[in-house]
Amino acid sequence: MNKQWKYSSFGIPDSYFTRGNAPMTKEEVRAVVMGKLRLKEDSILIDVGAGTGSVSIEAALKLTKGKVYAIEFKDDPIELIKINRENFGLDNVEIVVGRAKDKIREIKGFDRIFIGGTCGELSEILDYTMEEMKPGGRVVMTVVTIENLNRGLEGLKSRKLKDVEVVSVGISKGRSTGNYTIMEAENTIYILSATKE
Amino acid sequence: MNKQWKYSSFGIPDSYFTRGNAPMTKEEVRAVVMGKLRLKEDSILIDVGAGTGSVSIEAALKLTKGKVYAIEFKDDPIELIKINRENFGLDNVEIVVGRAKDKIREIKGFDRIFIGGTCGELSEILDYTMEEMKPGGRVVMTVVTIENLNRGLEGLKSRKLKDVEVVSVGISKGRSTGNYTIMEAENTIYILSATKE
Amino acid sequence: MNKQWKYSSFGIPDSYFTRGNAPMTKEEVRAVVMGKLRLKEDSILIDVGAGTGSVSIEAALKLTKGKVYAIEFKDDPIELIKINRENFGLDNVEIVVGRAKDKIREIKGFDRIFIGGTCGELSEILDYTMEEMKPGGRVVMTVVTIENLNRGLEGLKSRKLKDVEVVSVGISKGRSTGNYTIMEAENTIYILSATKE
Amino acid sequence: MNKQWKYSSFGIPDSYFTRGNAPMTKEEVRAVVMGKLRLKEDSILIDVGAGTGSVSIEAALKLTKGKVYAIEFKDDPIELIKINRENFGLDNVEIVVGRAKDKIREIKGFDRIFIGGTCGELSEILDYTMEEMKPGGRVVMTVVTIENLNRGLEGLKSRKLKDVEVVSVGISKGRSTGNYTIMEAENTIYILSATKE
Repeated sequence: MNKQWKYSSFGIPDSYFTRGNAPMTKEEVRAVVMGKLRLKEDSILIDVGAGTGSVSIEAALKLTKGKVYAIEFKDDPIELIKINRENFGLDNVEIVVGRAKDKIREIKGFDRIFIGGTCGELSEILDYTMEEMKPGGRVVMTVVTIENLNRGLEGLKSRKLKDVEVVSVGISKGRSTGNYTIMEAENTIYILSATKE
Repeated sequence: MNKQWKYSSFGIPDSYFTRGNAPMTKEEVRAVVMGKLRLKEDSILIDVGAGTGSVSIEAALKLTKGKVYAIEFKDDPIELIKINRENFGLDNVEIVVGRAKDKIREIKGFDRIFIGGTCGELSEILDYTMEEMKPGGRVVMTVVTIENLNRGLEGLKSRKLKDVEVVSVGISKGRSTGNYTIMEAENTIYILSATKE
Repeated sequence: MNKQWKYSSFGIPDSYFTRGNAPMTKEEVRAVVMGKLRLKEDSILIDVGAGTGSVSIEAALKLTKGKVYAIEFKDDPIELIKINRENFGLDNVEIVVGRAKDKIREIKGFDRIFIGGTCGELSEILDYTMEEMKPGGRVVMTVVTIENLNRGLEGLKSRKLKDVEVVSVGISKGRSTGNYTIMEAENTIYILSATKE
Repeated sequence: MNKQWKYSSFGIPDSYFTRGNAPMTKEEVRAVVMGKLRLKEDSILIDVGAGTGSVSIEAALKLTKGKVYAIEFKDDPIELIKINRENFGLDNVEIVVGRAKDKIREIKGFDRIFIGGTCGELSEILDYTMEEMKPGGRVVMTVVTIENLNRGLEGLKSRKLKDVEVVSVGISKGRSTGNYTIMEAENTIYILSATKE
């Protein structure tokens, strides 16, 4: 495919990514996530549980002087991130293979972290974020389950973070069926975010 | 206030804008709108019914070699756009005062148009867009009423546009009340978009 | 299966119905639809495009002195309505086989009509409703497409009906995955309703 | 006002109730709640934190051989329940004044409980429900905060209840503004329910 995104906007259409069966943060939600990340061109972003790498790639396109560390431990997503990284012609996405809570400790000097998939390691990841992320840095999470929504919100509120925010995003997308347009619902995504003091 | 947005992400928080009573495309919806606009750094964007100017300003920040024409005919919003333009330190937002269907005809060579408020002039605006917008240009609309949703979708489908798309975005925002977080719903916004052939 | 609903509440779980591939008004939306129908125990209800018959059956259970005419022209749904009618032990659901716009004209003296599926015959159906439905009667529609939403609303507003109302209902349902509960979204349904003068 | 609801459907319009400033379970959500309660005509229902009494009243209308205990400790809502009870001509709604966790223990032999407002007494209320509610009885809760959603779901899952279910209901209601219909969003409500073994 090797499509490249030649625009300065976020919101790369989902179809631009090679997906397989890995979960992907969808186009519209990704645009909101990017907004909440408040990237700078020299930001160092960690993408925890990178999946297809859509967040890593969309961010990396803007980080002209920065870098993304995409942490993932499953084989299939790792391959997808590699393919997508190549298709978008990016050399500032480093894939970090392994468990997030361990691997994250090898990354220093970051100022942004996106947590899209955690597998129960949230607490360790947030602890290290508080230790190592630069002041003024941003943490952004997406959650889809009731349990992680509650855990994520508590996790942010109980740490020295300011501007803790939660928004839910419910997207429906029109599908044409002849002369009719049916609005197909995607599951509501909760986006949590906060700033390190 | 004179806050400046020093980030490369879209999604400027609503609180950064001076609002008055003018309608405003809210932060999260604005991020999705920016995605659908697929801006280039040299894009020429028309913002029809610019309101507070939040879309104009957010776009203008990215159009380092481009420009925004913000069309608005009501006095109060015009003042707000001026204030916000100054607060964000922008010199590439030109305010065009008057009725959109008339004033739009004075603008040539644009490649992006955002229609957030139309007051029943949609048909004339789309006609001129088909006449004058550059091939490959993008038209994006936000609508909140059933009637305009239908009219907007028909308006796009009946013209020589491709990739006609409609998505609805329903945002709820957490508000803290002591130890509780209540999710407050904003009205669902429909975002229509298409590409000129 | 032959489960019977021994409760006086509406909201029969979807699993109580034999479904096949026919579209079905889901449990929660059905409960709201029943509310909007404002049934009396002696109401005569027409169910246009009855599908699996879930609305017909749920209503019939309350119409101890009334009756439901379930109009449907496709073979598979007709069979499903028969099966569900038998499972719920009802003798006050009459299946009317054929095109709604023709068959409806054979039904007299009704005071409630539910239009869940119309296939483009809405105008004729509403015309006959205005002609024949008893004063004070209720018309309720569910629509899922942008085009039918607009057409349905215009159809109600342009006739001598009062209390024209439109509500949208967006349901998500929790699904357990181990220790997590993911909220799965159903498509938003629009419910239109009005009272005949 | 003294309007009476002469229909066998649930979903009494909100305007039929005298409201004041007390929170009220809105018409459409109330219809779904009634469905989840699966009332029988001889059910004994406890309405915890009854507010305006809209759930108590709607249920009582169907409990021709049953009864509602409406527990409320604030003065204003108590007055509202009295007014609404009189307006609807009901003699099977008993108002129980006081703290839910204490007062509930005076009520025996119930088979339905609705928890719409708990003020942090959920655990005690569920404990007594497990002790005293009849087998096959139903517990239904509505929650609007992230914290209570999680607490409520855990509360149900950790007890000997079956068919634990959570659905979210997002209602938008059309408001006419001249020729346009704007869909105004209500906050999403979560409805939890379960059956006692």
